Amino acid sequence: MNDAEAIDPSALAEPGEVGLVEPRDYVHSTSFMFESGQSLPGFTLRYETYGRLNAARDNAIVICHALSGDHHCAGIHSLNDKKPGWWNNLIGPGKAVDTTNYFVLCANVLGGCVGSSGPSSINPATGRAFGMTFPFVTIRDMVRAQKHLCDHLGIASLAAVIGGSMGGMQVLQWGIEFPGYVRRMLAMATTSRESAQAIAFNEVGRQAIMQDPHWKNGDYEKGAGPRVGLAIARMMAHITYVSDASMDRKFGRKRKTASGHGSSVMGHGSEPRAGEANAASGLSPITHHPSPSAAYTFDAQFEVESYLRYQGQSFINRFDANSYLYITRALDHFDLAAAYGSLEQAFSVVQAETLCVGFTSDWLFPPEQNRAIALALLRAGKRASYAQLDTDLGHDSFLLESPQLYDLVRGFLH
Amino acid sequence: MNDAEAIDPSALAEPGEVGLVEPRDYVHSTSFMFESGQSLPGFTLRYETYGRLNAARDNAIVICHALSGDHHCAGIHSLNDKKPGWWNNLIGPGKAVDTTNYFVLCANVLGGCVGSSGPSSINPATGRAFGMTFPFVTIRDMVRAQKHLCDHLGIASLAAVIGGSMGGMQVLQWGIEFPGYVRRMLAMATTSRESAQAIAFNEVGRQAIMQDPHWKNGDYEKGAGPRVGLAIARMMAHITYVSDASMDRKFGRKRKTASGHGSSVMGHGSEPRAGEANAASGLSPITHHPSPSAAYTFDAQFEVESYLRYQGQSFINRFDANSYLYITRALDHFDLAAAYGSLEQAFSVVQAETLCVGFTSDWLFPPEQNRAIALALLRAGKRASYAQLDTDLGHDSFLLESPQLYDLVRGFLH
Repeated sequence: MNDAEAIDPSALAEPGEVGLVEPRDYVHSTSFMFESGQSLPGFTLRYETYGRLNAARDNAIVICHALSGDHHCAGIHSLNDKKPGWWNNLIGPGKAVDTTNYFVLCANVLGGCVGSSGPSSINPATGRAFGMTFPFVTIRDMVRAQKHLCDHLGIASLAAVIGGSMGGMQVLQWGIEFPGYVRRMLAMATTSRESAQAIAFNEVGRQAIMQDPHWKNGDYEKGAGPRVGLAIARMMAHITYVSDASMDRKFGRKRKTASGHGSSVMGHGSEPRAGEANAASGLSPITHHPSPSAAYTFDAQFEVESYLRYQGQSFINRFDANSYLYITRALDHFDLAAAYGSLEQAFSVVQAETLCVGFTSDWLFPPEQNRAIALALLRAGKRASYAQLDTDLGHDSFLLESPQLYDLVRGFLH
Repeated sequence: MNDAEAIDPSALAEPGEVGLVEPRDYVHSTSFMFESGQSLPGFTLRYETYGRLNAARDNAIVICHALSGDHHCAGIHSLNDKKPGWWNNLIGPGKAVDTTNYFVLCANVLGGCVGSSGPSSINPATGRAFGMTFPFVTIRDMVRAQKHLCDHLGIASLAAVIGGSMGGMQVLQWGIEFPGYVRRMLAMATTSRESAQAIAFNEVGRQAIMQDPHWKNGDYEKGAGPRVGLAIARMMAHITYVSDASMDRKFGRKRKTASGHGSSVMGHGSEPRAGEANAASGLSPITHHPSPSAAYTFDAQFEVESYLRYQGQSFINRFDANSYLYITRALDHFDLAAAYGSLEQAFSVVQAETLCVGFTSDWLFPPEQNRAIALALLRAGKRASYAQLDTDLGHDSFLLESPQLYDLVRGFLH
């Protein structure tokens, strides 16, 4: 019984849903050389699969996740699980990525912190977390590690590689690194290289983390790291994932109904989930001289403030600060034109057919940057198309309910 | 001899330049009631003036500064001063705001930290800085304090009030609060109320400051405050002041030529000015495990990173963190429609003629928000016009060289 066959949608799954899934670990036990020239004696990738590999072993689709995502992109982990995987709306029996036809695979990236090897993994040589001694990770390293997993699972070729944002970068790198292996590339809300503005936002987030006194050059105990810095980084980054219009529609200038004087700033959560509200206890409560009126306060006064504080708070309970540094640096470093001479040159080896999807309100990786990828592929003589979806939900549009997107994906895969 | 006459452009001034100027302090020594209901027994405003008040005392123009600005908007403080006031390109003899015709006045805002009363001022009752016990400050409080200064200077009425960004908010408030006193309002790159996104960015900056362990509920010694938090806030805010296009033109993905392993992260400055580079000594140097290649590093690797680090570093040497909290909160709180029932209602008392100027690439206070102000004034039956300038320099466009803007200002004042 190989790993692929061991994972079977539960008979208890709702119609059209992947249902119960179980993450598995792939342990690569031979030396792995990183692009930086550093190496590790091995690595682990945590992954999930949905659907079944066919007899020809050629119906596999690799899903690549974004900065803060992980391997759990569809299904649920228990029957009480209220929150399915992050792309559950796209993936499942009869859905756009149809698990009755495809064997879908998603792995936590190398450098990540949700089961795959990364800075928070224990270095067997020291018995302590690698921290900043973990090798520098690139998008190409992430893809090469995933290829080892695909080989392990006996996948002969990939029907498609699909991803948005950093996932889209991996998609492009897959098509360049393993051109004979990938039949379709579907990249959304992504870029072939970040703009100065995107680098700038990542840099502010990294500085918030690295200047936090609890960062200690990355050598912190689990749970005692730079929680404040990571929360600040996430709050800021979250603004770049949405749009002015969507924030105005969702929050506008709405005030919080109750003004919580003297309570913990990070303890405010407009949408707290079980177990998360109390876990932020590493953050200091803030008290200040109260003004005579609740209208004049430095506490969260607007709903958007509470929402952002909740975004920061929940993130620090599930993400490692050093991984955040490593993965944002991988994003900044990704530059296909620089790595291969030009974008056309980078794509010269590609054999896959490509669909790029841009979203009009995405100001982090704007539509033009997605369109430019398709144009370069066409100039390089490859089969490529570009679709632009009209949305005001910003960069995260690719994650949200969108019958238009589903139709595009379905059409591209058939 | 009153204060206005005491300030005279130096005979040494270059032609067309304001030349040597000297800041002065206005001490208001009777009780001042803030909009919050709190009060102080008095306050100080530091200000500068250029040009001369005429016999009718009606040729004065008030300039209102933005979040990180101050009273020094034109001229130089010494003959060795390489950096003139922040709006020196607009203000001077023969310039768009012509100091041969107008008596120009600019004061550091109430709540500020460059000589005017604010959280870093000493509370005579305790002998310590007010910190967070300073009354909550609103845009209206800033304007009412400036009116006391105008009265002190014997100004009968204002030929104009001019400002961009937060300065533009003050302009609108001037026209509403003292309608018979203001003949022209010129507001640029501003809004009648911040969007959820603008509040969100301010909130992340405030959290960076208030969660810095050196903030101590605002009760820090001068020079020992939350320097890291303030630097992070400024780095992030700076991104919102420029545009993706301008950052790409200025920096793109250009790498730093020398990679400074192990040096202080905040100590990198691509444009350090004398005395500023070493003043950041409160920040910890960061060391980390160096990778085998300079291409793989968490040090500043891209020029845009060095530039932002410099922006953060220089800001902490000139700005008080508590003032940053107070002034950003004043920005968030400003909402003319909410304060007066509707924007038209807010403007119903206005007597001034108004020009609003929006800049196409300003994504902090976008052109539409400036246009909406002019439209509301027109709907309220007032004289108003809107001009839009095509620029790719972002929000800070109003501060930069622009013959088009000069022509607009000149035309509006004549």
